[in-house]
Amino acid sequence: MKAFQGEHPQARLIRLGIGDVTQPLAPAIIEALHAAVEEMARTETFRGYGPDAGYDFLIDAIVEHDYRARGIPITSDEVIISDGGKSDSANIQEIFAPDCVVAVTDPVYPVYVDSNVMAGRGGPADASGRYGALVYLPCTVENGFLPALPDRPVDLIYLCYPNNPTGAVMTRETLARWIEYARRHGSVILYDAAYEAYIQDPDVPRSIFEVEGAREVAIEFRSFSKTAGFTGTRCAYTVVPRTVQGRSVSGESVSLNALWLRRQSTKFNSVPYIVQRAAAAVYTPQGRRQVRDGIAFYMENARIIRQGLEGIGLTVYGGRNAPYIWVKTPAGLGSWDFFDKLLNETHVVSTPGAGFGPAGEGYLRLTAFGQRDQTAEAVERIKTRLAL
Amino acid sequence: MKAFQGEHPQARLIRLGIGDVTQPLAPAIIEALHAAVEEMARTETFRGYGPDAGYDFLIDAIVEHDYRARGIPITSDEVIISDGGKSDSANIQEIFAPDCVVAVTDPVYPVYVDSNVMAGRGGPADASGRYGALVYLPCTVENGFLPALPDRPVDLIYLCYPNNPTGAVMTRETLARWIEYARRHGSVILYDAAYEAYIQDPDVPRSIFEVEGAREVAIEFRSFSKTAGFTGTRCAYTVVPRTVQGRSVSGESVSLNALWLRRQSTKFNSVPYIVQRAAAAVYTPQGRRQVRDGIAFYMENARIIRQGLEGIGLTVYGGRNAPYIWVKTPAGLGSWDFFDKLLNETHVVSTPGAGFGPAGEGYLRLTAFGQRDQTAEAVERIKTRLAL
Repeated sequence: MKAFQGEHPQARLIRLGIGDVTQPLAPAIIEALHAAVEEMARTETFRGYGPDAGYDFLIDAIVEHDYRARGIPITSDEVIISDGGKSDSANIQEIFAPDCVVAVTDPVYPVYVDSNVMAGRGGPADASGRYGALVYLPCTVENGFLPALPDRPVDLIYLCYPNNPTGAVMTRETLARWIEYARRHGSVILYDAAYEAYIQDPDVPRSIFEVEGAREVAIEFRSFSKTAGFTGTRCAYTVVPRTVQGRSVSGESVSLNALWLRRQSTKFNSVPYIVQRAAAAVYTPQGRRQVRDGIAFYMENARIIRQGLEGIGLTVYGGRNAPYIWVKTPAGLGSWDFFDKLLNETHVVSTPGAGFGPAGEGYLRLTAFGQRDQTAEAVERIKTRLAL
Repeated sequence: MKAFQGEHPQARLIRLGIGDVTQPLAPAIIEALHAAVEEMARTETFRGYGPDAGYDFLIDAIVEHDYRARGIPITSDEVIISDGGKSDSANIQEIFAPDCVVAVTDPVYPVYVDSNVMAGRGGPADASGRYGALVYLPCTVENGFLPALPDRPVDLIYLCYPNNPTGAVMTRETLARWIEYARRHGSVILYDAAYEAYIQDPDVPRSIFEVEGAREVAIEFRSFSKTAGFTGTRCAYTVVPRTVQGRSVSGESVSLNALWLRRQSTKFNSVPYIVQRAAAAVYTPQGRRQVRDGIAFYMENARIIRQGLEGIGLTVYGGRNAPYIWVKTPAGLGSWDFFDKLLNETHVVSTPGAGFGPAGEGYLRLTAFGQRDQTAEAVERIKTRLAL
C-alpha cells in the first residue's frame, strides 16, 4: 500500500482492509466520559486503583444486559474487565500448561496462533506458515466455513463467531457439537464473541453460554471495540464461569475463574475508571439505542459491499451477521494477486485472505467499518473499473 | 483490617498502607482529557487503533522532558507506551528464556517475583517464602538497603530506585557498579524508576541512563501513576535502548527493543487515545508546575510522618527521596505484631514489611500518599496513643 501510494501520490486510496471503526463515540458515551473526567478533578470523587476484576457498576450492567436479559445464568464474579479482546485472547493461554495441544481454525485471527507460538506451543513451521504442533481446522466453502471437529484430542480450541475473517456464524446445533466434543475430551473452548453485536438473525446464539453445557467447558471473550467504537478507547471483558475447571499436574480440579483472576490481578491493574464509566454508558437506554444505530450503520455498509460485488458476479460470503465480507478471488487469482489488482485498478485497499492462514488463500477480506461515502465510492469503483 | 473494622465498627481507620494516591488529577490533565473526549465525539477527529508503541505526541514529549533535557541520549523509537508499570514489569520477562537466572532484592515489589514464578523460573519455595531458583539480594540496615552484587552470575536483575518499599536511592557510583557487573556477565538490568519524580537530591540519578554504559545493559520502567496521580487512569512507558542486546539460543545478538515492541504489538493494543493525551499534558508548562506541586504535597506528608515518628524515638528510613517511609519495629517486634499494635492502639493501617520478603521482617511501610489532614492525624495518634 505504501509502495503504491509512493508511486501514485495522486491516487485517493479507500481503505476497506483494516478492521478499525470510523464512527465517533455515541453521545451517551461522550457524556459519561466528561462526567467521569470531572470526578477525577475533585478529591472527594477521585479514583485511584480500582477493583482487580473491574468496577461493579460495569460488571453488573454487563451481567444484566448481555446475559440475564437473554436468560443466560452468568453471575458478576464470572466477569473480568480488561483493556481489550486482543490482550485477553493473547493472555488466556498463560493459565494453561506449556504442553497443551491447541486447535485453531484456518483462516484465523493471528493473535491466537502468535500467542501460543510465543509460549512454545507451536513447534516447527512449514513452508506454508503452518506450525507443526498446532491442530488446524480448515474453514472452506465446502464446510460453509464451519470447521469439522478435530480428528484427535486437543486441549484448547479457539473459536471466533461471528467469524473474523470469513463472516460466518455458528448455529446452536453446531455449537452444541463443539461443546459435546469438549466435554468428552476435557477440552476448553476459548470463544471469541467480539462481533456478537452484528448478529441480525435471532436464531444465531450471541453467546456460547446460550447453549446447554457450555458453562462447564467454555470461556467467552467480549469487547466494546466493534460494539461501541472502542478500538481507541480500550475496554473488553472475559467471562469465565465458576463451573469451568482445568486439571493440575497431579490431576486435581482447578477453577479457571480463580486462575484467570489471579493472572489478571498479578500482571494487570485493570482499566481506567473513566473508560469503565464510558463502557457502562453503553447499557443506558440512550447508549443502547445509539450503539444499535451505529451497528445498523455499519451493517448497511456491509449490504452495500455485498450486493455491489454480487452485482458484478463476484462470489461473496459473510456480511449478513458480521461486519466482514469474505470475497472469493475471481478466475483462480491468488489472494495477493487480487489484492494488487484491486489496488491498481480501483485504489481500494483490502486484506489478502492468505494473511489469515493457508486456507484463506483465494479470498480477500473487506470490512464494513468505513465511512458511508467512501464505502459507496469503493463499491462504485469496483463495479466500474475492475476488469473481470 | 477487615476483621478489626468488623469488631470495632466505630473506629475511624486511617490507611497509610497501600501505595495509592489520593489527590485529584491536575487541572492541565483534566483540560486535556475533556478536549480529547471531544475529539472522540466527531468523525473528523475520532481515533481508532493507535500506533503500537504509542502516539508520537506523547513519546516526543517524554524524550524531550524526561531524557534530552537532562542530557540523556534516548530516542523516540526507544520509548514504548503502556497501561502501567505493573504490566510492563510483569510482562518483560516474556522476552527472555524460561531458564534465565533472575536476581531480585529482598524486600521487593512482589510483581517481579510472581511473574517469574508464574513463568517457571522460581523453583521450589522454602518455609520463609523464598524460591530456590531465584537469587535474593538482601537489603538491610547494614548495607544501607543497597544490596551487594550477586555472588554468582545472573541473567536478569530487577532494581527499583527510589525503592519500594524501603525508600532508599542509588547513587551514581553504586549504579555504575551494577552496570559494570551486568556488562561483565552479560546480564540485563530491569530498572524500575516508577518513583523518580520523588527524588529531591540533585546528585541522585533519576534514570539509569544517566550513568555511563547503561544503554548497553539496561531497560527502564517509568510510570505516570505516582508522578501524576494516574493509578486509576493507567499510563506508563518502558525505555529499551536500541543498544541493549540479548542472545538467541544459537548465540546471535538480538535487539531487545525489537523483541519488546513485537511482544507488545502482538499481545496489546496500546493505551486509550484520551489517556495518552492526558499523559502528554503532564509535560506542558502548566502540567509540569501542577505535577511538581502534587509531588511536593506528598513529600510534605513524608516529612510529617518521618519527623513525627523520629520524635517519639522510632527509627525510620526513606521518605527523603521517596514517598515511602520504612519504619523499624520497636523492641524487636515482628512486622505483623507491630502492624497489629499500630492498628489496635492508633487505628492506623500500615503494610507489614514481611509482605515484601523475608528481609522485610522487622519493618513496616507507611506511605506519603494520604490526605494531609489524615496523615497529620495518623502521626498525632501514633505520637499520643502508641505505647512504646
